[in-house]
Parts: sequence; structure tokens; C-alpha cells
Amino acid sequence: MRVGLDVGGTKTDAVLVDPAGTVGARVRLATGWGPDAVTSTVVEAVGRLATAAGVPMSAFSTVGVGIPGQVDPVVGAVSHAVNLGIDYLDLAGAAGRALELPVHVENDVKAAALGAAALHGGEGTMAYLNLGTGVAAGIVRDGELVRGTRGGAGEVGHISVDPNGPRCRCGQRGCIEALAGGGAVAERWAKPGAFPVRDVFDAADAGDPLAVRLRGDLAYGVASAVRVLVLTDDVDTVVLGGGVSTLGARLLEDVTEVLDRSAVESAFLRSLSLPQRLEILPAGSPAAALGAALVGDARDGVLFGP
Amino acid sequence: MRVGLDVGGTKTDAVLVDPAGTVGARVRLATGWGPDAVTSTVVEAVGRLATAAGVPMSAFSTVGVGIPGQVDPVVGAVSHAVNLGIDYLDLAGAAGRALELPVHVENDVKAAALGAAALHGGEGTMAYLNLGTGVAAGIVRDGELVRGTRGGAGEVGHISVDPNGPRCRCGQRGCIEALAGGGAVAERWAKPGAFPVRDVFDAADAGDPLAVRLRGDLAYGVASAVRVLVLTDDVDTVVLGGGVSTLGARLLEDVTEVLDRSAVESAFLRSLSLPQRLEILPAGSPAAALGAALVGDARDGVLFGP
Repeated sequence: MRVGLDVGGTKTDAVLVDPAGTVGARVRLATGWGPDAVTSTVVEAVGRLATAAGVPMSAFSTVGVGIPGQVDPVVGAVSHAVNLGIDYLDLAGAAGRALELPVHVENDVKAAALGAAALHGGEGTMAYLNLGTGVAAGIVRDGELVRGTRGGAGEVGHISVDPNGPRCRCGQRGCIEALAGGGAVAERWAKPGAFPVRDVFDAADAGDPLAVRLRGDLAYGVASAVRVLVLTDDVDTVVLGGGVSTLGARLLEDVTEVLDRSAVESAFLRSLSLPQRLEILPAGSPAAALGAALVGDARDGVLFGP
Repeated sequence: MRVGLDVGGTKTDAVLVDPAGTVGARVRLATGWGPDAVTSTVVEAVGRLATAAGVPMSAFSTVGVGIPGQVDPVVGAVSHAVNLGIDYLDLAGAAGRALELPVHVENDVKAAALGAAALHGGEGTMAYLNLGTGVAAGIVRDGELVRGTRGGAGEVGHISVDPNGPRCRCGQRGCIEALAGGGAVAERWAKPGAFPVRDVFDAADAGDPLAVRLRGDLAYGVASAVRVLVLTDDVDTVVLGGGVSTLGARLLEDVTEVLDRSAVESAFLRSLSLPQRLEILPAGSPAAALGAALVGDARDGVLFGP
């Protein structure tokens, strides 16, 4: 049995995955802040899974961790995970020593992409588009993560799709993330609230002009990311996930409308059937933690094949 | 020995490639118009290569053909090659029967990408960006073409990077091809000339305001394609080729200037060292015909490796 953990800014989601790829026991706990507390969270999550499953930790073959920030998957270290208070942490080393288990670490979006691909099934190329505070994608080709030459594949959030668009926190204008990132939308909306993007959707429904513009920009940004992923890599499916994707059908409808407009304008775009390639991760999906369990295979996701 | 042919709208470039990957004999001839004439061109080119090398055609193991249009590489058929007068042609069948040799067919940009990758050498992911009448890329990963789920990978020319940009022939606004395609530039320039894009560069140097704008748009379009390819697939190198790329250093300087501007704006873009990833195919490079010779391997370009 494998363990997969999705370490988020506030919560950590942990699952057991059997050799057939089925998710078994699942626990959630609050994520600690800073390197030591994050390591403790990982260790505690694995212990709680053992308790929940009624097995000793020695029954687990590997522990995979998806975590935000810049990850060196070879070393198993994470850097610049600002939301977790981590500047640098050798998580595979620290958690591995405490657990006496092999620990693999991967960027959270890339891990979630593996999980989304495993849940989706099938061969070919697919993308997981994470709509969180920022925007990034994980691309999976025949069960394997596409990493690129320096591990930077999937950074579609910082492709500019409007030279006159809003300034991105990265410094460019009109980045996809500046249009569709939850952080950028909240900043432009500039009103307090637990889930500003939903507030924007509600206010747009009520006719608020700023909200209508922000909501339109968000849909345009997501649709642009879908076009980039399909036109560059011809991915068969784009699965939307992350906090903003919990808006569900409301988000899907907006994005589909933008894609439908480009299909009306352009026979070539129409031939690509973009709206049919779009899916959304169900609320509460264990994709991110499941994907983390798949990290570290010689061929990442090809764990359950023949 | 393998034969590689790059069938262009006016000329066909044919090369012999030995098992070490070295280009030997090379011939050029005019391309015929229509399915029968294109087949004859292919057959004649192979015969001329045999004569040039002083060997019988039976010394050739395979013939690879790169050709514009929509190609089904499994069947070896080409459709919608408007500039060649071809609606549909089973080129592998027709030329294979005449030559009594196995014939493999691939889209010209994808074949050229294989050749550019072979000439460039090294592992990792690279892209060949063809700046011809239209704009499209071929992406090569560890010597293999990235095709995508339906064979449509590399169609970056139809990614819109400016919602207020010029209308593309595909129907969308602000496509990379509408900014950087030789056809689009010629249309917007609307003055006769053998090589309108060079005329635009010259007129811009002389201060013509329309030319300055078109030249700026072209650089912005190419730079956008580079950003898309690096941010999505983290390609290590983008090799520029195609007719517009014969502008050489003048084009490279313009594109580098746009990339440098985004590096000044954005620390993240700066960290990607985009200008250093940019290369241009030397004038007269046999990359396209060489790449065609590599088409049809089980693992496309991995012909000469250990």
C-alpha cells in the first residue's frame, strides 16, 4: 500500500492507495507552518492513516507528497513555499528519517495532474489546470509527467494573452494568472470576504459592472489557457481543479461561452472541439493526494497498468 | 542510406543521409503542381540522388517526405495541401509503387523539427518554429516528435495573444500567425514585392509608420510563440526557420528586444533566459530534408544513437 499526501496552505489531505489504484482510508488535518511543523504534519498524517486502516506503518511501501513551491523531485526538497513558511526544506530526508519509509516529493500541481490523469484513465495527453491563488498546469502524457528541460513545463499562468491587460504580480501585463488567478481577482475586487471569486460571480449576477468585468476576464483567462494547452500539446482533456474550480458549473458555463465564441469566429478552432475537452474535478476529489501516491515511480503514473 | 525530401510550394530539396546521420548528396528541383506531378517530383528526386551518388536506387533503405498540408503519417497520405494543388494524395502508396521503396510521409514542419533537433543534438525538449506564410511549431522530445492526442500539437500560430489584434485568416483576432505569419504581414502591407516581409523591414528602417507597426507586431508575435513554447513545454531551444527566418540577424534582434523587455518587467521571465534559448536556422540548411529522412522510425529521430 502507498500513501499520498496533498499538503495545502491550510489543510493536508492524506490517502491510502492499494496496488489496484483504489483509494482506501483518507484523513485530513491542519497543515503546520514552517519547515519543522510541515514535516510533523506529514509524519502525523501517515500515522493517522495507519491507525485508520488498522495496519502498522511498515505496511506502507512509499509515501508521496505533493506540496506547493519549487520542488526538486530528485532530492525531494522544496524551496520558496511562501504560504507554508518554508524557504528550503529537505522534506524527503526529514520525513523519511522519522517514518523510516521512502518519501517522494513533487510540486502539488504536478502531483494533482498525475492523480487527475489516473482518475480520468486512458492513454494520450491530458492537462490538469490548477486555478488557485495562481494558475499553473500539469501535463501528463501516457501516464508520465511532462517536465520539460528544466522542470518548468506547465507554467501557462505567465503567458500574456493581452498586451493591454492588467499587470500581473510577475511584472508582465495580461498574464493568464493576472486574469484568472484567485489572488489577482481578489486583489482587483478589493473587498473583504472568505471566497472573493464567488463574491465576484454573485455581484456579476446582480449586475455590478466591476464584477462583470472581472468575471469576464476570468473566463477569458481560463479559456486562453485551454487554447494554449490544446494548440501546443494537443491535450485530449483539460481538467480544471483548485479553489476557483469549486465554482463548478458557473465557471464551466462562462469558460464554455468564451470557447464557443471562438468556435463561431474560427472554423479551425471549431474543428478542435475545445468545450468537449473541458472537465472539472468534482468537489472533494482525492485527485491531488492520489497523484502524490503515484509520484516517484520510474514512469510516474504507470503504476496500475499491465 | 536513407533519402529525405522536403517538398515545398515551389522547390523540392532532396538529400541522402548515411547511417551516421551525415548528409551526403543533395539535389534541388522544381515541385510539380497537382497530385500526379507531386508524385513524379518525388520519384524524380530519388532518381537524381541515385545518379548524383553513383548508386542504384536499391541502395536506399527508405524515403521520407516532408510536405505541407494535413498528413496522416500512418497511411502516408496528404490532404488539403492547397499550395501544391492537392486535395488528397496517397503519396506513400503512389511513390512507393513507382520506387519500389518504403515511403514515409510527414507534415513538413514536423519533419523539419526532427531535422533541426538532429542538427542541434542533445537530449531534452526543443521546438522548431516555422515562420512561413503561416506559423506553426514542431516539438521534439528526446528525439521523438510530440504529436498530441489527435496529431495537432504545435499549432501555436492560432493562439490569440491580443484580443484587439488584427483578424487572422482563421477568424480569430490577434493570433500569433496574424502578427507574425508572412502571409498576414504581406496582406497588411498590401504592396507588391517578391519578399514583402523584407520590404517591411526596410521601410521600417526608413521610418514608414505602417512598416514600423507591422515589424513590431511580427517581433511581438514571434516572441509570444517563444514564450508559449517555453512556458508550456519548457523547451530548451527554439529554432526559428521558414521563409521569414531568412531575415536572419534583423529578425533575431527584434525578437530578442521584445524578450528582453519582458525580462526587465518580470523576474520570473528573466529567470527563464528566453533570448539564450533562441536560435535561427542558417540559410540553406538541409534541416527539413534531413528531418524527412528520419521520419518513420519507431522512435522518430533516434536513428543514430547508441
